[in-house]
Amino acid sequence: MIDSERHINRAMLPEPTLRRLPWYLAYLKQLDSKHEDHVSSTQIAKRLNVDASQIAKDLSFLNIKGKTRIGYEVHPLTKTLTEFLGFKHRHNAYLIGAGSLGSALMRDLGLMQFGLNIVAAFDIDPEIIGSQVGNIPIYDLAELHSRQRSSGVAIAIVAVPSESAQEVADALIASNIKAIWNFTPFRIKVPRNVVLQNTSIYSDLAMMYNNLEANVNNKNITK
Amino acid sequence: MIDSERHINRAMLPEPTLRRLPWYLAYLKQLDSKHEDHVSSTQIAKRLNVDASQIAKDLSFLNIKGKTRIGYEVHPLTKTLTEFLGFKHRHNAYLIGAGSLGSALMRDLGLMQFGLNIVAAFDIDPEIIGSQVGNIPIYDLAELHSRQRSSGVAIAIVAVPSESAQEVADALIASNIKAIWNFTPFRIKVPRNVVLQNTSIYSDLAMMYNNLEANVNNKNITK
Repeated sequence: MIDSERHINRAMLPEPTLRRLPWYLAYLKQLDSKHEDHVSSTQIAKRLNVDASQIAKDLSFLNIKGKTRIGYEVHPLTKTLTEFLGFKHRHNAYLIGAGSLGSALMRDLGLMQFGLNIVAAFDIDPEIIGSQVGNIPIYDLAELHSRQRSSGVAIAIVAVPSESAQEVADALIASNIKAIWNFTPFRIKVPRNVVLQNTSIYSDLAMMYNNLEANVNNKNITK
Repeated sequence: MIDSERHINRAMLPEPTLRRLPWYLAYLKQLDSKHEDHVSSTQIAKRLNVDASQIAKDLSFLNIKGKTRIGYEVHPLTKTLTEFLGFKHRHNAYLIGAGSLGSALMRDLGLMQFGLNIVAAFDIDPEIIGSQVGNIPIYDLAELHSRQRSSGVAIAIVAVPSESAQEVADALIASNIKAIWNFTPFRIKVPRNVVLQNTSIYSDLAMMYNNLEANVNNKNITK
């Protein structure tokens, strides 16, 4: 079903709602694999530690309403969420930078389950240009423009060293890439018509270290 | 320098500040490699698209103050931030689940640069138990408790299928693990004295797909 039939305005969907939808989906998939028929928002709430009214509100953005005393139908809701989140479609993507993180992403088949299909990688290192990682070819970055033109790939994953991140992003935008998934800790600037998604695993790491340290300090104080 | 000398209360540090510090560090490292001596908050602000007053405020939490008309000293600030964020220390960690994502994390040497050292992996698949990925041994999950007791490892990375995430987390907590880095889309529950850090690359993917779709829809409307 296309968005207009569901009357969903994607641009109006709050980011926190969108971020919670994959959590609900992960739990629903689990219930679905156990052939559970229905689930209530209270049950989801208890399991995921999210307010039940928040869950109902989040799902209402997708025009999904549970039935009183029965809740949501597990299988159809799983399908609708998978579809809405774009995990069922095949999104072709380029990977820029086939170093350690880049190669890891090329080997991680997990992304494919969520609809992301890396069709080619690009690098500037002559030692790896022409080789393959997990059946994905690595091309010279200089070929980006001509290859994008013939393939029409819209998404690029940036996994280059921080200091090259902006330069690479500028080349991607000039080559008509419409969305950049930035894995570097560098804050890339993009024009308004290009989607930028940052994944800051190093910020997450810093958060974890800090909270661990805070717990230790706290224990020393309360001793 | 330890936190108490700097008078930093880690538990009081706002999360958005903590998340921005690695961005500043990435830019500072770049300047440092070019042997730049000083940088102003205005210059950082322009480069990273963050308010200059916000940068000054974020750094003041670490008791770092720039000098009027000169700004911050690049090299000392790079060192202080690296130290504060825990990227210079060696944090030993276990990896639970050596499937596609898990193996990718084991091969990604990038994490080592940020102080994370995966010393061993655990799995339940007899086919891979006893083997190695990138010099890291894979043990039987049943050995977790005894191995943790002799190693004292405090951090565990969870990269198992969603449906096993809570069960694995419970086993980790029972084995005295103090911090869990959750890569599954499942919302694990932990007691208050255990640190939980979620990295939701699938939520990020959903965000990117949605914004890309919103851009396409928007273009069709304005045509």
